[in-house]
Amino acid sequence: MAVDDDLFDKLKVELRRGALGIGVLAALREERYGYTLRQMLEDAGLRIDEGALYPMLRRFEAQGLLTSEWREEAKRNKRFYRLSPDGEEVLGRLIAEWETLGSSIRRLVEGGR
Amino acid sequence: MAVDDDLFDKLKVELRRGALGIGVLAALREERYGYTLRQMLEDAGLRIDEGALYPMLRRFEAQGLLTSEWREEAKRNKRFYRLSPDGEEVLGRLIAEWETLGSSIRRLVEGGR
Repeated sequence: MAVDDDLFDKLKVELRRGALGIGVLAALREERYGYTLRQMLEDAGLRIDEGALYPMLRRFEAQGLLTSEWREEAKRNKRFYRLSPDGEEVLGRLIAEWETLGSSIRRLVEGGR
Repeated sequence: MAVDDDLFDKLKVELRRGALGIGVLAALREERYGYTLRQMLEDAGLRIDEGALYPMLRRFEAQGLLTSEWREEAKRNKRFYRLSPDGEEVLGRLIAEWETLGSSIRRLVEGGR
Protein backbone atom coordinates (compact mmCIF):
# COMPACT_ATOMS: atom_id res chain seq x y z
CA MET A 1 0.00 0.00 0.00
CA ALA A 2 1.45 3.30 -1.11
CA VAL A 3 -0.35 5.70 1.19
CA ASP A 4 0.80 6.46 4.70
CA ASP A 5 -1.57 4.75 7.13
CA ASP A 6 -1.41 7.74 9.49
CA LEU A 7 -2.79 10.01 6.80
CA PHE A 8 -5.64 7.66 6.00
CA ASP A 9 -6.38 7.21 9.71
CA LYS A 10 -6.60 10.99 10.19
CA LEU A 11 -9.13 11.30 7.39
CA LYS A 12 -11.04 8.30 8.69
CA VAL A 13 -11.25 9.81 12.18
CA GLU A 14 -12.77 12.96 10.68
CA LEU A 15 -15.28 10.89 8.79
CA ARG A 16 -16.17 8.77 11.82
CA ARG A 17 -16.53 11.63 14.31
CA GLY A 18 -19.89 12.83 13.08
CA ALA A 19 -21.16 9.33 12.41
CA LEU A 20 -20.29 8.24 15.94
CA GLY A 21 -22.33 11.10 17.33
CA ILE A 22 -25.40 9.93 15.43
CA GLY A 23 -24.73 6.34 16.49
CA VAL A 24 -24.48 7.26 20.17
CA LEU A 25 -27.64 9.37 20.11
CA ALA A 26 -29.56 6.68 18.21
CA ALA A 27 -28.44 3.97 20.65
CA LEU A 28 -29.65 6.07 23.59
CA ARG A 29 -33.26 6.25 22.50
CA GLU A 30 -33.32 3.38 24.98
CA GLU A 31 -31.68 3.92 28.35
CA ARG A 32 -28.24 2.27 28.60
CA TYR A 33 -25.14 2.48 30.72
CA GLY A 34 -21.64 2.82 29.31
CA TYR A 35 -20.83 -0.85 28.92
CA THR A 36 -24.05 -1.86 27.16
CA LEU A 37 -23.87 1.26 25.00
CA ARG A 38 -20.36 0.40 23.81
CA GLN A 39 -21.50 -3.18 23.24
CA MET A 40 -24.39 -2.03 21.09
CA LEU A 41 -22.20 0.32 19.06
CA GLU A 42 -19.62 -2.39 18.55
CA ASP A 43 -22.26 -4.90 17.45
CA ALA A 44 -23.32 -2.36 14.84
CA GLY A 45 -19.71 -2.02 13.67
CA LEU A 46 -18.89 1.26 15.44
CA ARG A 47 -16.08 0.51 17.87
CA ILE A 48 -15.34 3.39 20.22
CA ASP A 49 -12.77 3.67 23.01
CA GLU A 50 -13.94 4.54 26.51
CA GLY A 51 -11.59 7.52 26.32
CA ALA A 52 -13.60 8.86 23.41
CA LEU A 53 -17.07 7.74 24.48
CA TYR A 54 -17.26 9.28 27.94
CA PRO A 55 -16.18 12.78 26.89
CA MET A 56 -18.77 12.58 24.10
CA LEU A 57 -21.47 11.56 26.58
CA ARG A 58 -20.51 14.41 28.93
CA ARG A 59 -20.57 16.86 26.06
CA PHE A 60 -23.97 15.68 24.83
CA GLU A 61 -25.34 15.86 28.37
CA ALA A 62 -23.97 19.40 28.84
CA GLN A 63 -25.65 20.32 25.54
CA GLY A 64 -28.96 18.98 26.84
CA LEU A 65 -29.17 16.12 24.35
CA LEU A 66 -28.92 13.41 27.00
CA THR A 67 -29.93 12.96 30.61
CA SER A 68 -28.14 10.63 32.99
CA GLU A 69 -28.88 9.03 36.31
CA TRP A 70 -26.87 6.92 38.76
CA ARG A 71 -28.70 3.74 39.79
CA GLU A 72 -27.81 0.44 41.34
CA GLU A 73 -28.04 -2.60 39.11
CA ALA A 74 -26.75 -6.04 39.99
CA LYS A 75 -25.31 -4.53 43.21
CA ARG A 76 -23.23 -1.99 41.32
CA ASN A 77 -23.78 1.70 40.81
CA LYS A 78 -24.06 2.51 37.14
CA ARG A 79 -24.68 5.70 35.30
CA PHE A 80 -27.56 5.31 32.87
CA TYR A 81 -27.93 7.60 29.87
CA ARG A 82 -30.99 8.35 27.80
CA LEU A 83 -31.85 10.68 24.94
CA SER A 84 -33.73 13.85 25.99
CA PRO A 85 -36.57 15.34 23.92
CA ASP A 86 -34.08 17.89 22.51
CA GLY A 87 -31.78 14.97 21.71
CA GLU A 88 -34.62 13.27 19.80
CA GLU A 89 -35.07 16.38 17.72
CA VAL A 90 -31.37 16.80 17.02
CA LEU A 91 -31.02 13.12 16.16
CA GLY A 92 -33.84 13.37 13.64
CA ARG A 93 -32.23 16.38 11.99
CA LEU A 94 -28.79 14.77 11.95
CA ILE A 95 -30.17 11.62 10.34
CA ALA A 96 -31.81 13.76 7.65
CA GLU A 97 -28.50 15.59 7.14
CA TRP A 98 -26.61 12.31 6.95
CA GLU A 99 -28.98 11.05 4.25
CA THR A 100 -28.59 14.25 2.26
CA LEU A 101 -24.79 13.98 2.50
CA GLY A 102 -25.00 10.35 1.41
CA SER A 103 -26.88 11.19 -1.75
CA SER A 104 -24.50 14.08 -2.53
CA ILE A 105 -21.52 11.77 -2.19
CA ARG A 106 -23.16 9.09 -4.31
CA ARG A 107 -23.78 11.67 -7.01
CA LEU A 108 -20.15 12.81 -6.97
CA VAL A 109 -18.68 9.32 -6.83
CA GLU A 110 -20.86 7.95 -9.59
CA GLY A 111 -21.04 11.16 -11.61
CA GLY A 112 -17.35 11.29 -12.38
CA ARG A 113 -17.06 7.70 -13.61
CA MET B 1 -38.08 24.51 17.21
CA ALA B 2 -36.81 23.77 20.68
CA VAL B 3 -33.15 23.17 20.03
CA ASP B 4 -30.60 25.94 19.73
CA ASP B 5 -29.65 26.29 16.07
CA ASP B 6 -26.01 26.90 16.99
CA LEU B 7 -25.80 23.53 18.67
CA PHE B 8 -27.30 21.74 15.70
CA ASP B 9 -25.02 23.65 13.32
CA LYS B 10 -21.96 22.58 15.29
CA LEU B 11 -22.94 18.92 15.06
CA LYS B 12 -23.79 19.33 11.38
CA VAL B 13 -20.36 20.84 10.66
CA GLU B 14 -18.71 17.81 12.26
CA LEU B 15 -20.83 15.52 10.16
CA ARG B 16 -20.14 17.42 6.94
CA ARG B 17 -16.37 17.79 7.38
CA GLY B 18 -15.51 14.23 6.47
CA ALA B 19 -18.15 14.04 3.76
CA LEU B 20 -16.83 17.20 2.11
CA GLY B 21 -13.37 15.66 1.94
CA ILE B 22 -14.73 12.66 0.04
CA GLY B 23 -16.75 14.95 -2.20
CA VAL B 24 -13.73 17.11 -3.08
CA LEU B 25 -11.51 14.12 -3.81
CA ALA B 26 -14.21 12.44 -5.91
CA ALA B 27 -14.82 15.62 -7.92
CA LEU B 28 -11.10 15.88 -8.68
CA ARG B 29 -10.82 12.57 -10.48
CA GLU B 30 -11.23 14.98 -13.35
CA GLU B 31 -9.04 18.06 -13.42
CA ARG B 32 -10.87 21.21 -12.32
CA TYR B 33 -10.08 24.68 -11.08
CA GLY B 34 -11.60 26.21 -7.96
CA TYR B 35 -14.68 27.73 -9.53
CA THR B 36 -15.79 24.66 -11.48
CA LEU B 37 -15.00 22.45 -8.50
CA ARG B 38 -17.25 24.52 -6.23
CA GLN B 39 -19.91 24.51 -8.93
CA MET B 40 -19.80 20.73 -9.17
CA LEU B 41 -19.98 20.30 -5.40
CA GLU B 42 -22.88 22.72 -5.17
CA ASP B 43 -24.75 20.94 -7.97
CA ALA B 44 -24.39 17.75 -5.94
CA GLY B 45 -25.79 19.51 -2.85
CA LEU B 46 -22.47 20.14 -1.08
CA ARG B 47 -22.10 23.89 -0.77
CA ILE B 48 -18.67 24.95 0.47
CA ASP B 49 -17.27 28.43 1.11
CA GLU B 50 -14.09 29.47 -0.64
CA GLY B 51 -12.64 30.09 2.81
CA ALA B 52 -13.10 26.40 3.61
CA LEU B 53 -12.36 24.94 0.18
CA TYR B 54 -8.94 26.44 -0.50
CA PRO B 55 -7.38 25.43 2.83
CA MET B 56 -8.74 21.92 2.23
CA LEU B 57 -7.18 21.84 -1.26
CA ARG B 58 -3.84 23.05 0.13
CA ARG B 59 -3.95 20.44 2.86
CA PHE B 60 -4.79 17.64 0.42
CA GLU B 61 -2.01 18.77 -1.88
CA ALA B 62 0.51 18.91 0.99
CA GLN B 63 -0.58 15.37 1.90
CA GLY B 64 0.10 14.22 -1.66
CA LEU B 65 -3.53 13.47 -2.49
CA LEU B 66 -3.79 16.15 -5.16
CA THR B 67 -1.51 17.80 -7.65
CA SER B 68 -2.05 21.29 -8.97
CA GLU B 69 -0.83 23.34 -11.90
CA TRP B 70 -1.22 26.97 -12.99
CA ARG B 71 -2.38 27.32 -16.57
CA GLU B 72 -3.93 29.98 -18.71
CA GLU B 73 -7.49 29.42 -19.79
CA ALA B 74 -9.69 32.02 -21.48
CA LYS B 75 -6.86 34.55 -20.97
CA ARG B 76 -6.78 34.06 -17.23
CA ASN B 77 -4.35 32.14 -15.08
CA LYS B 78 -6.10 29.42 -13.17
CA ARG B 79 -4.89 26.79 -10.79
CA PHE B 80 -6.06 23.35 -11.86
CA TYR B 81 -6.30 20.51 -9.37
CA ARG B 82 -6.38 16.80 -9.98
CA LEU B 83 -6.38 13.66 -7.86
CA SER B 84 -2.98 11.93 -7.58
CA PRO B 85 -2.58 8.13 -7.61
CA ASP B 86 -2.29 8.24 -3.79
CA GLY B 87 -5.45 10.33 -3.74
CA GLU B 88 -7.24 7.66 -5.81
CA GLU B 89 -6.25 5.05 -3.28
CA VAL B 90 -7.32 7.16 -0.29
CA LEU B 91 -10.60 8.06 -1.97
CA GLY B 92 -11.39 4.39 -2.56
CA ARG B 93 -10.69 3.56 1.07
CA LEU B 94 -12.71 6.53 2.34
CA ILE B 95 -15.68 5.55 0.19
CA ALA B 96 -15.53 2.03 1.62
CA GLU B 97 -15.34 3.49 5.14
CA TRP B 98 -18.27 5.79 4.42
CA GLU B 99 -20.37 2.83 3.26
CA THR B 100 -19.48 0.84 6.37
CA LEU B 101 -20.42 3.80 8.57
CA GLY B 102 -23.68 4.15 6.69
CA SER B 103 -24.70 0.57 7.33
CA SER B 104 -23.70 0.88 11.02
CA ILE B 105 -25.86 3.96 11.40
CA ARG B 106 -28.78 2.35 9.60
CA ARG B 107 -28.53 -0.62 11.95
CA LEU B 108 -28.56 1.64 15.03
CA VAL B 109 -31.33 3.91 13.77
CA GLU B 110 -33.59 1.09 12.69
CA GLY B 111 -32.57 -1.34 15.44
CA GLY B 112 -33.91 0.75 18.27
CA ARG B 113 -37.33 1.35 16.73
